Amino acid sequence: MNRLRIVFHGPNASQFRPGMEELLGSDHEIQTLSDRLDLPGERSAFEAADVIVGIRLQADLPRPRQLKLYLAPAAGTDAIDTTLLPPGCPLCNCFGHENAIAEYVMAALLARHVPLQRADADLRQQRWTYWAGAPDALRTELGAQTLGIIGLGHIGRTLAERAKAFGMRVHACNRSPVAHPSVDQVWPLSDLTAFMASADAVVLTLPLTEQTRGLVGHQELSAMRPDAVIINVGRGAVLDEHALFEALVQKRIAGAVIDTWYQYPQAGQTTAAPSQLDFASLDNLLMTPHMSGWTRGTLRRRQQTLADNITRLAKGQPLVNRLN
Amino acid sequence: MNRLRIVFHGPNASQFRPGMEELLGSDHEIQTLSDRLDLPGERSAFEAADVIVGIRLQADLPRPRQLKLYLAPAAGTDAIDTTLLPPGCPLCNCFGHENAIAEYVMAALLARHVPLQRADADLRQQRWTYWAGAPDALRTELGAQTLGIIGLGHIGRTLAERAKAFGMRVHACNRSPVAHPSVDQVWPLSDLTAFMASADAVVLTLPLTEQTRGLVGHQELSAMRPDAVIINVGRGAVLDEHALFEALVQKRIAGAVIDTWYQYPQAGQTTAAPSQLDFASLDNLLMTPHMSGWTRGTLRRRQQTLADNITRLAKGQPLVNRLN
Repeated sequence: MNRLRIVFHGPNASQFRPGMEELLGSDHEIQTLSDRLDLPGERSAFEAADVIVGIRLQADLPRPRQLKLYLAPAAGTDAIDTTLLPPGCPLCNCFGHENAIAEYVMAALLARHVPLQRADADLRQQRWTYWAGAPDALRTELGAQTLGIIGLGHIGRTLAERAKAFGMRVHACNRSPVAHPSVDQVWPLSDLTAFMASADAVVLTLPLTEQTRGLVGHQELSAMRPDAVIINVGRGAVLDEHALFEALVQKRIAGAVIDTWYQYPQAGQTTAAPSQLDFASLDNLLMTPHMSGWTRGTLRRRQQTLADNITRLAKGQPLVNRLN
Repeated sequence: MNRLRIVFHGPNASQFRPGMEELLGSDHEIQTLSDRLDLPGERSAFEAADVIVGIRLQADLPRPRQLKLYLAPAAGTDAIDTTLLPPGCPLCNCFGHENAIAEYVMAALLARHVPLQRADADLRQQRWTYWAGAPDALRTELGAQTLGIIGLGHIGRTLAERAKAFGMRVHACNRSPVAHPSVDQVWPLSDLTAFMASADAVVLTLPLTEQTRGLVGHQELSAMRPDAVIINVGRGAVLDEHALFEALVQKRIAGAVIDTWYQYPQAGQTTAAPSQLDFASLDNLLMTPHMSGWTRGTLRRRQQTLADNITRLAKGQPLVNRLN
């Protein structure tokens, strides 16, 4: 077992550091570094690292020439430029967020059918607005609807299982042919437009790649049912920014739940608009700050994966979740 | 097949009338009557009915002396005084609300873990409060918790299936020994106090009977975990009014979600307090107006059960859901 120099780079990755010594159970050298590496010794520690845990590797950073493993404590690695890694250096990611994201999606979907907040506010005023028996208070049921999932990976499958337990019909659209006991019908990506028309709620779970950028645009949104909702928990740019804004402004669909965005705060910024377009002016949109996967459970599951891969590296065993 | 005189009594029951002719597919005489029977001919129509569809039979109403079947388009029949029925007249109820109530409970539970409304309000102000990576934004997961269900009937089993799909541990407390693939552990009613201490969320699904009135009182609430929540979708009086209020005021439990109450609007009232106690002043309570089961799906499923039982009566076949 080799003693490894491990750095946790930036504030996101540093969340995964506490307790890592216990999980590794071995005497490695562990450091936490700032995102900009502007504190004394940080640049050299980054350059000399055997293992970097981080979510951003760009040309503004020094080259980690000794690097044996880059670990992303996240599923998406679109901010990691693999051409900056030493030749042959593996990049591995983590999942473990699928339970959290499925809870976020189901919470957002159920909230569209069960008006808890309005009912509570009214009853506090002694108004029984949604009382059983009132003809104009009849709710719809999520379980009677069809969920369409684009991308049947970890998130898609976990979500499908929960939706199916509610009695939903579950459709999926996936690059490769797949089957899952909770999925009723699978459509190839070439039938994306027809798939969009088949669901009451469409959920995007895709990573951002050259193949997925702008995958859902004007044509795909126009194919949706006018009473349907679109949900993005994958990466913002998979769903065309202007096409989404236009569909919501023109109310061509019933609404959207958007967790992944087009612009993010830069290091040090405390506020930032999530788009160049004024999504905050829309009332048929639930907008959240890329939070869907961020739970204690995700943190714990990802720490386990990080520690597992570091131990595998130290022992010369095959890595898991290798991307390159 | 006999031609039957069928009356739908009161505003709640009358919601089930539209479309009933098509479901029955047979030439019966169907009337809709007001709750108080104060319109011309209503009292005599009530007295002469072969079948009453209603939720209230009390001494202020005339005796339906010809009655062959009383159908409650609801599960709870505590407002139906069966001593006022002719000897041997069957009382049957309806379920079909279990999907709706399970969605209500899961929506309320998920909302405690996924702060969608606060996240949306903040991001509209360009504040990324819950952004993944922020250490103070880590959510808890519903799936990591234990759900305790009191009463493993239609509602309890349907709820257990959905909770299990999220990965929850599911406990049940039931009068008779029962088993269900989605339930991990069953406790007898004699162990109610220990059961209360075993769960992060306790859901009451019970009807009101002499055995269930006040079943959960001071002692049972005191046994709950301080961070646990209690949910009542059964009948208000199963959960002791004063004990609940005290537990919430003193914050001995984390909160409550109460859909079934201690006081209801009387006929003609548009507003009414749901309790003699000031529950509306509490901020650790979600209060809703007995709405959890009231969906289009419930209406449709109950209409099917009503039509089925009327057809069985007309054909002399055994009834379903008979209670007496």
